[in-house]
Amino acid sequence: MDFIYLDNAATTFPKPSHVINSVTECLNEFAVNPRRGINPLVKKANDKLEATRRKLSSIFGVDSKQLSFVPSATYGINIIIQGINLSFGETVYISPFEHNSVLRSVMHVKGQSGINVKVLPIDGNCILDVEQTEMLFAAYPPRLVITTHASNVTGDIMPIKEVIEISHCFGGKVLIDAAQTVGLYTPKIDKYDYDFLAFSSHKGLYGIPGSGGIIIKDITELPAPLIFGGTGINSEDINMPDFVPERYESGTLPLPSIISMLAGVEWIEEMGAEQIAEKVNILKQKLLKGLSDMEVKIYGHSSSYGNIGIVSFNVLGFSPQDIDSLLDSKKICIRSGLHCAPLAHKKIGSYPNGTIRVSPSYFNTENEIDVFLDIINQL
Amino acid sequence: MDFIYLDNAATTFPKPSHVINSVTECLNEFAVNPRRGINPLVKKANDKLEATRRKLSSIFGVDSKQLSFVPSATYGINIIIQGINLSFGETVYISPFEHNSVLRSVMHVKGQSGINVKVLPIDGNCILDVEQTEMLFAAYPPRLVITTHASNVTGDIMPIKEVIEISHCFGGKVLIDAAQTVGLYTPKIDKYDYDFLAFSSHKGLYGIPGSGGIIIKDITELPAPLIFGGTGINSEDINMPDFVPERYESGTLPLPSIISMLAGVEWIEEMGAEQIAEKVNILKQKLLKGLSDMEVKIYGHSSSYGNIGIVSFNVLGFSPQDIDSLLDSKKICIRSGLHCAPLAHKKIGSYPNGTIRVSPSYFNTENEIDVFLDIINQL
Repeated sequence: MDFIYLDNAATTFPKPSHVINSVTECLNEFAVNPRRGINPLVKKANDKLEATRRKLSSIFGVDSKQLSFVPSATYGINIIIQGINLSFGETVYISPFEHNSVLRSVMHVKGQSGINVKVLPIDGNCILDVEQTEMLFAAYPPRLVITTHASNVTGDIMPIKEVIEISHCFGGKVLIDAAQTVGLYTPKIDKYDYDFLAFSSHKGLYGIPGSGGIIIKDITELPAPLIFGGTGINSEDINMPDFVPERYESGTLPLPSIISMLAGVEWIEEMGAEQIAEKVNILKQKLLKGLSDMEVKIYGHSSSYGNIGIVSFNVLGFSPQDIDSLLDSKKICIRSGLHCAPLAHKKIGSYPNGTIRVSPSYFNTENEIDVFLDIINQL
Repeated sequence: MDFIYLDNAATTFPKPSHVINSVTECLNEFAVNPRRGINPLVKKANDKLEATRRKLSSIFGVDSKQLSFVPSATYGINIIIQGINLSFGETVYISPFEHNSVLRSVMHVKGQSGINVKVLPIDGNCILDVEQTEMLFAAYPPRLVITTHASNVTGDIMPIKEVIEISHCFGGKVLIDAAQTVGLYTPKIDKYDYDFLAFSSHKGLYGIPGSGGIIIKDITELPAPLIFGGTGINSEDINMPDFVPERYESGTLPLPSIISMLAGVEWIEEMGAEQIAEKVNILKQKLLKGLSDMEVKIYGHSSSYGNIGIVSFNVLGFSPQDIDSLLDSKKICIRSGLHCAPLAHKKIGSYPNGTIRVSPSYFNTENEIDVFLDIINQL
């Protein structure tokens, strides 16, 4: 390759050859419409679809009935936020690190229904101020609490267990945005007890863009669907099915992307999630160490819960965009700016220009990090 | 292949090797997140994304600003129907052949907002009763009129030009569901003057599942977005962009599926859309001729506007499901039942059991049709 790709928090690239081979096999052999008919090709599509559902369910520790496929984490987040019938005067809490997929969805519902939107008191070290949260929750009971599992800007892991426990004490449901953590830091439901979770195919699962999933713990109380259409079953009913997963899976499913998640998990299991995470961690440590010798400000990496391997920083005297242009000219792929997460940048003090974000994956090398550090060092 | 696939109205299969090669190239070389950053990989992704948009726009005869990508035709239909702010007492008209993507979406809005839903007077020969329509429109002015371009059950082409003209006379906007026709029978906007149109990647465009598009004629009056999230631009704004295509393209785009549409159009142009349609037509005529010698009832094929190459029928004395099971045992892939379109089956008189639907593509052979006909003939 004639470039160095360090923007794996946006999408992991390259993909494992097992993933690409699986997608190609799907395209050649069974890329048809699951649940439409009983013929041998549809059966093969169904089998792979449900094998993917079972495998993904197993990594979260949920029943496969609790997992529905959606076009992306953003769609999944929208289904939950728009689907649980938030009413005037009810309060939704969000973490101070939320992505626009959460922020814009919540602000849309606020505009429509007049809900209150409040920010959880989580500090720069990702510590939840329990006392202040209890006061807030007592004054404005939480209907829905939303937090990302890890910031897409700093990589810092959020206190999701603490948020979930205190929310449940006050009768609130919790939605976890696991876009950044599924794969190497998949949150198990028996450890965290979240109510809803959204994830995507193309980041830590090393799948291809075009799908993701939502987990709904209590399938006896399902959010309204957001998209209405054919499901291949009960076609005579003018309403969407009141059961999962069909309720959320209308229209032709993005099968090639969905089955790429199965291949991604298989690859992760073969390599070992801990081994992959450790390799990313070594690259991250190298980045942090290299940058700490320079005149740069590094954000985050102060969470008591750890960091998934993202380094956001600024170089004194340069805008993130200047540095991005320089790196671009050297064919180094990073991402500068606000990363669709203005809240997080306000929290860490890098608003409105944002940061340079560097996010290695398993496929990066220490040499690539050296090349990157050399360029920054020469500024 | 050890099977015969005749369910191309659900999804075309197999795909042209040019399509599969293009997707594989994308996965290997640039399957990253368009509009996120300025690096060389993102630029390549952007270039292919916008080349696809331009090519697709050209086949509809619209400006590329008028075409936004969505996860499927179903999502596109939902964006329009849910996005144009239909209010209590307003009337939506649908054709008697609508798929559940339209019917369920409209009934959802009816349940929420109290709109009226009425069925257009289109007869079995696909003739619009103009006089009756004028009376209906005068009594209940049309806010939105929705018709499929061709029935997914019979393949018959609907009187969309007539529907659009009369709707515009009464101030109604028209949404065309072109899921079945894009590719070989793409409706040009200068001929039809529709207001909105939805299409999908994986049928007549010979692309892979996971994407589609919507066309919005008047981009100064945009429907509300349905999905809220990051767009890679204006991240500091808590609202979705008020311009296209970003307004409808939040979250990571399904790039591999989107670019497969470009490859599909390239393949169609190389082969010739008319030549492909003619081959499908020959296979359809062979089916019709073969079936007409047997004790079967064939539905449709009476439209003055033509038929796109779908044959729906029933064999006297057998349920569609019985025949589907038999064909399944012979590894012949068709689709029986209601095809997610109960309205259409009510219209043609095959409700509630539906029909056997056979839909050939360019890749079928006359020999395959003979094998199919032999099995039906032996019943």
